[in-house]
Amino acid sequence: MSSKEEIRPEDVEIDGLTAAELEAQHPADAAEAIEGLDLTDQIKFIKQLPVKDAALSLAEMETHDQKEIIQNLNRGLAGRIVAHMSPDDATDLLDELDYELQQALLRRVPAEERAELKTLLTFDPDTAGGVMNTEVVILDQDLNVDLAITKIREEVEDKEIPYYAYLTDEKDRLVGVVSLRDILLARRGAMLKDLVKTQSLVTVGYNIDKEEVAHLIAHYNLLALPVVDFGNRLLGVVTVDDVIDIIHEEASEDMQAMVGAGADETTDSPWLYSVRMRLPWLIINVLFSAISAWVVHLFEGNIAEMAVLAVLMPIVANQAGNTGQQALAVMIRQLAMERFDRKRAWLAVVRELRIGLLNGAIISSLVFGVAFGLTGKLSLSLVMGLALGVDMVLGAVAGASIPLLLKEVGRDPAQASSIFLTTITDSMGFFFLLGLAGLVLLT
Amino acid sequence: MSSKEEIRPEDVEIDGLTAAELEAQHPADAAEAIEGLDLTDQIKFIKQLPVKDAALSLAEMETHDQKEIIQNLNRGLAGRIVAHMSPDDATDLLDELDYELQQALLRRVPAEERAELKTLLTFDPDTAGGVMNTEVVILDQDLNVDLAITKIREEVEDKEIPYYAYLTDEKDRLVGVVSLRDILLARRGAMLKDLVKTQSLVTVGYNIDKEEVAHLIAHYNLLALPVVDFGNRLLGVVTVDDVIDIIHEEASEDMQAMVGAGADETTDSPWLYSVRMRLPWLIINVLFSAISAWVVHLFEGNIAEMAVLAVLMPIVANQAGNTGQQALAVMIRQLAMERFDRKRAWLAVVRELRIGLLNGAIISSLVFGVAFGLTGKLSLSLVMGLALGVDMVLGAVAGASIPLLLKEVGRDPAQASSIFLTTITDSMGFFFLLGLAGLVLLT
Repeated sequence: MSSKEEIRPEDVEIDGLTAAELEAQHPADAAEAIEGLDLTDQIKFIKQLPVKDAALSLAEMETHDQKEIIQNLNRGLAGRIVAHMSPDDATDLLDELDYELQQALLRRVPAEERAELKTLLTFDPDTAGGVMNTEVVILDQDLNVDLAITKIREEVEDKEIPYYAYLTDEKDRLVGVVSLRDILLARRGAMLKDLVKTQSLVTVGYNIDKEEVAHLIAHYNLLALPVVDFGNRLLGVVTVDDVIDIIHEEASEDMQAMVGAGADETTDSPWLYSVRMRLPWLIINVLFSAISAWVVHLFEGNIAEMAVLAVLMPIVANQAGNTGQQALAVMIRQLAMERFDRKRAWLAVVRELRIGLLNGAIISSLVFGVAFGLTGKLSLSLVMGLALGVDMVLGAVAGASIPLLLKEVGRDPAQASSIFLTTITDSMGFFFLLGLAGLVLLT
Repeated sequence: MSSKEEIRPEDVEIDGLTAAELEAQHPADAAEAIEGLDLTDQIKFIKQLPVKDAALSLAEMETHDQKEIIQNLNRGLAGRIVAHMSPDDATDLLDELDYELQQALLRRVPAEERAELKTLLTFDPDTAGGVMNTEVVILDQDLNVDLAITKIREEVEDKEIPYYAYLTDEKDRLVGVVSLRDILLARRGAMLKDLVKTQSLVTVGYNIDKEEVAHLIAHYNLLALPVVDFGNRLLGVVTVDDVIDIIHEEASEDMQAMVGAGADETTDSPWLYSVRMRLPWLIINVLFSAISAWVVHLFEGNIAEMAVLAVLMPIVANQAGNTGQQALAVMIRQLAMERFDRKRAWLAVVRELRIGLLNGAIISSLVFGVAFGLTGKLSLSLVMGLALGVDMVLGAVAGASIPLLLKEVGRDPAQASSIFLTTITDSMGFFFLLGLAGLVLLT
């Protein structure tokens, strides 16, 4: 069928779905249904939906799908869809496109919205300015409640954030926030500025990292957090539903970056994208493994004399690695959830040292006991127990310290931390085991 | 000082903080400040604060601190604090206490609230009923907007959730939800039931898992989700700020459970608690490592003949482990963020197989090349490259499958998954490497 014909949506059916059915769904559900299709069908559906519905659904899709669909639509329709998206969603999408397409679409957006999108595009996407919504209700603080209600009625209809209105002074500076609840509860004729007199307003600068913004909203249980410039003028708000996305993203980033997978990979990413994201870290990992292998190589003579050492190697390495990963996981989550406090963070390393010492002592005694019971070889069992215990303690301290060291040098605390950790626990574990064996058993 | 004396808060100073200063802070900040103190000082502060502020601050603290403070207060004060907490926060706390103390505190709560808390305590804390808030504004659907505003004004003052009001029919069944925004926008005299006529209401049963609740709220960008019983009667609502906590908790649980740390551990947990949580998994890990060691033991003769095999072992094990952890991380995050869809989930395993095949082929060719370049030994380099590549593919498939298999048998998909994974990649890696070496190099 040609896309130029006039087609009624109810005529089109793809994969058992009709556009009319999609239209009746919540945009988030329509988005999920469309994401399940292949690109050709996705395009067909988007073309059949009313522009407004297409914009709403597209906003709910994952970045990768959004981008592919927009790149494959004709520019007229793509531009109209972008113009119908809320400014923050449109900016997120435009940010992902190459410059030429971005500009081409911007030219198709009406002048007023274009100016706003251009401003939004200047903010770093990982900051408050990059995630904020600019559709806010702004009221003059010198209005009374009744006038405010009239004003809100006029404005609120097409705004996404209908729960707060922001009060400004004559120089457009933010002076307070009132909720619709405050306005409903206020006595008739009360002045807006009197409602916010004793308010301690939480705001955030536009250049603050979005994780910090998420932290503030979660900490204070806010529904929206106003974003201001250096002159305390209101630029927009970050809403709680954006925060949920940020928290999900950060959790995925941490977990995936830790082991060298792409921070934004999902099971829907193209598989070659995942290959490209993971391969560099796998190469780094194999180079780091070479360090551990080199340590073993130093003691090759010992192993040739006593092959049983090679039997024990995986136990030491694996066990210390696991101990370290437990510390690593707790530490990375802590850094994700709480504001960074250097003193408390390093105290947490001491805490992990204690845990490592006790768990190390228990496990290595156990292993010593079992090894001695099975083999009757006291020295070998002692060497094994000792190397294991020391490496576990080292693993605990390394697991807790690596994210902090990464943070101190200005890197993502999670990035490749598991790779660094196992390099340390593997190489030092082999060094302790094979070195001790050389000293005690083979002299 | 005796706690029976009349003490003015401004007289007491602990760690440079006065109770008067704490009182002036947002409860979330006061909670953070109090959490930083040791128990004796925590108790002193809580005693100095007005009961209402103490209740608000306590609600913002971590479970562990809450519990310790309540256990160490006299029961009269503890009971009054619990009575001042919002019912959902009070229930969370009571759920953590031993039965005797729980009942003692309940007896000190006024009868009406006691009945409510007792009902809430019957819900599983991990379900919608366990996290819902019961302070909701309920309106008869036959009211008009103006009467509704009067009713809301009367009720909303002491309720935590002021953005929605819920409409019920004559049999208390939920028929719709109106936001304060809807009410402000509606024309005077409009009937409430006419506002919700075309509404497609999202509700959730009280026994639905809280993760699913969080998923629904995030998916539909809701501020609150009504919880109903089997007769569709409204029991309460889950609000978006609870969802943020749930998402944070789940992310910590996944990351920490994956490596066998306690799901609810933080850097503030008592260190002995962490020891107790991690030790069982460390013991399981050491037992599993013994499997890998046993595989090596089977080939001890080969190693005695060719100690260089022990040098290569850590590279194979570590590299396949890392490959598997990349797949594991992406899969666990997927299960955390999206509704489980068996078909899509197993397709994701196929995707990981592809990624593993390509990454495995690239890395093993690289390692083969370097090994051959360095040693000039063709057969050894081939054995190494082949064992590495095969184990990486196995790691990718195992990493992707383990969470799904755990899910299929009704377990937490993350629990100890990393331990299971490395057992497979270690033992099979050694089997491939040492076995192939035995076949190719030593015959």
